[in-house]
Amino acid sequence: MAGSSFGDIFKITTWGESHGPALGVVIDGVPAGVGLSEEDIQKFLDRRRPGQTSYSTPRKEADEVEILSGVFEGKTTGSPISLMIKNTSQRSGDYSEIASYYRPGHADYTFDAKYGFRDYRGGGRSSARETAARVAAGAVAMKVLSEFGINIRAYVKQIGPHVCEVSETPSLAQVEESPLRMPDKVASDQAEKYLADLKSKGDSAGGVIECVATGVPAGLGDPVFNKLDALLGFAMFSIGAVKGVEIGDGFKVASSVGSENNDAFIRGTESEASEQGINPAGSVKKATNHAGGILGGISDGDDIFLRVAFKPTPSITYEQKTVNRDGEPIDISVKGRHDPVIVPRAVVVVE
Amino acid sequence: MAGSSFGDIFKITTWGESHGPALGVVIDGVPAGVGLSEEDIQKFLDRRRPGQTSYSTPRKEADEVEILSGVFEGKTTGSPISLMIKNTSQRSGDYSEIASYYRPGHADYTFDAKYGFRDYRGGGRSSARETAARVAAGAVAMKVLSEFGINIRAYVKQIGPHVCEVSETPSLAQVEESPLRMPDKVASDQAEKYLADLKSKGDSAGGVIECVATGVPAGLGDPVFNKLDALLGFAMFSIGAVKGVEIGDGFKVASSVGSENNDAFIRGTESEASEQGINPAGSVKKATNHAGGILGGISDGDDIFLRVAFKPTPSITYEQKTVNRDGEPIDISVKGRHDPVIVPRAVVVVE
Amino acid sequence: MAGSSFGDIFKITTWGESHGPALGVVIDGVPAGVGLSEEDIQKFLDRRRPGQTSYSTPRKEADEVEILSGVFEGKTTGSPISLMIKNTSQRSGDYSEIASYYRPGHADYTFDAKYGFRDYRGGGRSSARETAARVAAGAVAMKVLSEFGINIRAYVKQIGPHVCEVSETPSLAQVEESPLRMPDKVASDQAEKYLADLKSKGDSAGGVIECVATGVPAGLGDPVFNKLDALLGFAMFSIGAVKGVEIGDGFKVASSVGSENNDAFIRGTESEASEQGINPAGSVKKATNHAGGILGGISDGDDIFLRVAFKPTPSITYEQKTVNRDGEPIDISVKGRHDPVIVPRAVVVVE
Amino acid sequence: MAGSSFGDIFKITTWGESHGPALGVVIDGVPAGVGLSEEDIQKFLDRRRPGQTSYSTPRKEADEVEILSGVFEGKTTGSPISLMIKNTSQRSGDYSEIASYYRPGHADYTFDAKYGFRDYRGGGRSSARETAARVAAGAVAMKVLSEFGINIRAYVKQIGPHVCEVSETPSLAQVEESPLRMPDKVASDQAEKYLADLKSKGDSAGGVIECVATGVPAGLGDPVFNKLDALLGFAMFSIGAVKGVEIGDGFKVASSVGSENNDAFIRGTESEASEQGINPAGSVKKATNHAGGILGGISDGDDIFLRVAFKPTPSITYEQKTVNRDGEPIDISVKGRHDPVIVPRAVVVVE
Repeated sequence: MAGSSFGDIFKITTWGESHGPALGVVIDGVPAGVGLSEEDIQKFLDRRRPGQTSYSTPRKEADEVEILSGVFEGKTTGSPISLMIKNTSQRSGDYSEIASYYRPGHADYTFDAKYGFRDYRGGGRSSARETAARVAAGAVAMKVLSEFGINIRAYVKQIGPHVCEVSETPSLAQVEESPLRMPDKVASDQAEKYLADLKSKGDSAGGVIECVATGVPAGLGDPVFNKLDALLGFAMFSIGAVKGVEIGDGFKVASSVGSENNDAFIRGTESEASEQGINPAGSVKKATNHAGGILGGISDGDDIFLRVAFKPTPSITYEQKTVNRDGEPIDISVKGRHDPVIVPRAVVVVE
Repeated sequence: MAGSSFGDIFKITTWGESHGPALGVVIDGVPAGVGLSEEDIQKFLDRRRPGQTSYSTPRKEADEVEILSGVFEGKTTGSPISLMIKNTSQRSGDYSEIASYYRPGHADYTFDAKYGFRDYRGGGRSSARETAARVAAGAVAMKVLSEFGINIRAYVKQIGPHVCEVSETPSLAQVEESPLRMPDKVASDQAEKYLADLKSKGDSAGGVIECVATGVPAGLGDPVFNKLDALLGFAMFSIGAVKGVEIGDGFKVASSVGSENNDAFIRGTESEASEQGINPAGSVKKATNHAGGILGGISDGDDIFLRVAFKPTPSITYEQKTVNRDGEPIDISVKGRHDPVIVPRAVVVVE
Repeated sequence: MAGSSFGDIFKITTWGESHGPALGVVIDGVPAGVGLSEEDIQKFLDRRRPGQTSYSTPRKEADEVEILSGVFEGKTTGSPISLMIKNTSQRSGDYSEIASYYRPGHADYTFDAKYGFRDYRGGGRSSARETAARVAAGAVAMKVLSEFGINIRAYVKQIGPHVCEVSETPSLAQVEESPLRMPDKVASDQAEKYLADLKSKGDSAGGVIECVATGVPAGLGDPVFNKLDALLGFAMFSIGAVKGVEIGDGFKVASSVGSENNDAFIRGTESEASEQGINPAGSVKKATNHAGGILGGISDGDDIFLRVAFKPTPSITYEQKTVNRDGEPIDISVKGRHDPVIVPRAVVVVE
Repeated sequence: MAGSSFGDIFKITTWGESHGPALGVVIDGVPAGVGLSEEDIQKFLDRRRPGQTSYSTPRKEADEVEILSGVFEGKTTGSPISLMIKNTSQRSGDYSEIASYYRPGHADYTFDAKYGFRDYRGGGRSSARETAARVAAGAVAMKVLSEFGINIRAYVKQIGPHVCEVSETPSLAQVEESPLRMPDKVASDQAEKYLADLKSKGDSAGGVIECVATGVPAGLGDPVFNKLDALLGFAMFSIGAVKGVEIGDGFKVASSVGSENNDAFIRGTESEASEQGINPAGSVKKATNHAGGILGGISDGDDIFLRVAFKPTPSITYEQKTVNRDGEPIDISVKGRHDPVIVPRAVVVVE
């Protein structure tokens, strides 16, 4: 069944395999008149591009985006925007071996079970390369959101046991200072050592990304199934390798009590109300933000916080046990395929 | 915008407020010919019904379900099944006071911000009473799933700091032995004391529910946005008060490494393959289940595990600070409204 | 698969069989703050109610609507509105005979082919009684649309060979003057005689309904698949017994030429522009309206015209040939079930 | 709002403007394992390609399709299939003049009213060139449908006053014998003269296409809103220039009577039942087919007939009155843009 579209009003449809000729996305529902150029999108793809550290996939890709429709004289027209990224490094030959067996932690087995058939080149459709199309779509979303004063930032919160401590939401520049996009020098340095050690063993690490959306007006989200947190959870779990999602205080709420976890409402200052211009019920704000900016599935005007846990990338060179397509046990050691950490990818989602 | 429907093939649409005349659900897409009676649904509603312990909402409701359509001569017809539950304890008078201010932790403020208006009786549409309709729909889903040998069980994994340890998935009878549905006598007793103490203070607790689906065949879930884990995340976060969701090892994966987290594939025995009758790619199984039964967004034939964190119910009698609709700071202490713990509710979701 | 919902932003989900305990509709996406009472809906149901002429179904039904949710203190809340109409005249016994064979022109055979099973009481879900729920939903849509100055009227354009000629769109009062809702005295009288003759033979007639929407602003409809005409065509063909739909000049365009069919654009007067207040591109209007108010799938600010052809109601007492469930040929003559004409029903559809 | 996708299980999303770099379609939900090559699609595009007669648009386009994803080793993989067709004849310069005024019968005005902005090159997104993407998607649908023994054929039923009479559904070869795809030599010759005359005047003609689907099993279509006829009506009205759609007897039913219009059920022969292998309720068939193969919104196993009326193509060189963007009346005569007839395009739609 069709599963490659997301969203209703702003709808994205992605396509493409790891080693096909290209991949891309059709973005439908973008308002007309928004300025948009390939550069606006390219800068996000450049941040995502593999090969920027020694800890991400060694694949070389220029990841140049082409706008094929929906933009005229530098502005969106309201028609669907088609974006294409050509795959330049297809090396199909490298992948013939893995056609015969199921790599642990990958989707090889489940794709075979579902489709009776798979494009085994680099994971095909299940490859993390699919997120390039999401990042391109996210770049367009960011252009639209920025017109409403909404900003979304993400950074690496945790790699292995090393947790990044920040006193306030870091700026993009602060995030970029760390090669691991972990804006806490101590944690970032420790994490680098941790990754270097794992790399030498052919192993990989997991991690947590934290994402903050600022400037979101109160009132977004539709009870009861299309709660804003439900849509965010849907979007986040649709990213490959995600095993957990938290909003606000997340799992910590289980051991909290109501008198602590309830965020008191307080009166905002007049200047806050006027500066934001986004609070339809007057100068009301919260004294704390355990809720992470969402109450009853509707944004409350506060910053939205979420954290997403990624499992260690399954592409390791460590020797592993598995079975082949005939169910026969074999030992594998995938040479040269080694992605010790999932590079943070900012993925935005809007209605 | 319409947000009260969930699902495509099996689609549920819920309606109803906490203190309106009734609430209900329309379930569309149920296959024809499935045996279904009001008793099949009632037994789930009876488990959910408030007032069964001293730790849940004191509201008295019979919660009797009526089947209004879609069933003929004891079998589903393929037409939509309309279920209605009348509200017998509407006590609208009790709620007039809360119309004037915003209760911390509730959706009062965000509903006002979104709609400019709200049904303030007991939270209206944002009340946890809405889940009665989900439970009724879930009961119908369970009847359909049971025809495929799929079973879904849930139990309380954690209340406050007290965590339930189980060596294997507990049976329904084991779960029911604990008044808190926490199938670990030590933890359940401690949690009862913890709740009694909170109750005496007018405070409330959070918790975690664990849910296990067994008998799920490999091959369910649609890459890339409608991954099975994405749909589960969507469904779970759509339940009120949920702040975190984990699949399989969840947030623990962040500090794991690939060589540990990758589940090796092994050969299943012939009898396993024939007993299950559900493994389209032969007798392949996993040696461990860190993945929680989902790989690449597609079920792998193993048990599906998920955990959901609920915040402490915000209905406390503890004195709290808030503002009224005019933004004026006030202190409130909601008398007689006190729900120290969220009773576990089994919510099932299918495509 | 679920097929009982229509619409995205304003979404309706209907349920109920001809002879079940009740039927109804859940309307989700209605804006908050719209005044709505049961009377607003009842007046439309009263117009639809069977038994008003000797030419419609003799079934007696009060068709009293109950609002079960979504309205508080006389106003919509933004939450789903659940409407229920109880069936008071269920007479299940009358229908036992038709369980054994397939009535020509009915959905008996196709429901059996699809579901392997059917609720044979009065057609079950395939009964035209299902439109009561649509009319109730349409009444709510009309309340919302009236806030934007949009009005929708329908009348009988044709019964058998008798065509109603009108010089301009008739008022509701003019439509109601005719017992057949055919606002042309000559045609209406002829059609009455035509129907009386058919009735005496146990036969039935087909007809055409014309519908006009006024006050629709330019700019509604989404290229390319969700064109406004495509959504209207979708909605109209979803009504039972519809075999043809036309927008504007309809099938006449096939024998027209471009120089005639193209509607010239002209300048509207200043007062027209200001009165309407709905023309975002200035005082532009069309000299003619062959297009029926839609160009390129988007409303052009002009009146929207559509016509819908209904087949003769298949419930006739005329002797007919058919087969029973075992495929054996039989002759049937359904006594006492005789609906010589389909009463016009106004069905509205919005995004 | 997003309107460029159609379908749920088999979902197509089209993109592209008349004079952008390319256009295309993403087809999601295609089953895995279906043989598919570019040639399978190209042959349909070749039939659609402009410039094959002197009566269609003079634009020269190779319309070569590229498969960018979803096919591996000659078979579909279950992943989305992305198809791209490059525009080779973009001639943007030709269109600068029409930016300033609204061409009658085109979507220039309504796009401006909706988006405040338009891609004026050749109609942009509203161009009939958009149907190239539908034809490509339809070719893929035909491959899938052919595996189920379903075939879909279309031909020109009427051009201006000239109606094609056929005794039975014509073969593809019979259709191709006529340069106008009107498989009735007399009508085709008359229509050619009619078009030659209109062409000399700079005018254009309308027409009707008839489409027949054979081999459709009984049981497709979902009551009550997703009736098979409703989905077909939705699809047909989404094609530009369509002003009327009929199923089966269409508008003729209005002047028919029930005793004629009801199709009697009869017993099929044993060999019919076994040959078809598609009749789940035994050897039941209809003596006539006024219904056009659909009863109660569900296919009845008979051939599905539909007819679609296209308005005269609005691109005429005839002098016409209109207004410019400032609302000033002007006379226009669009030189060299002249498409006297809409070439038949087979458009298929499946769930």
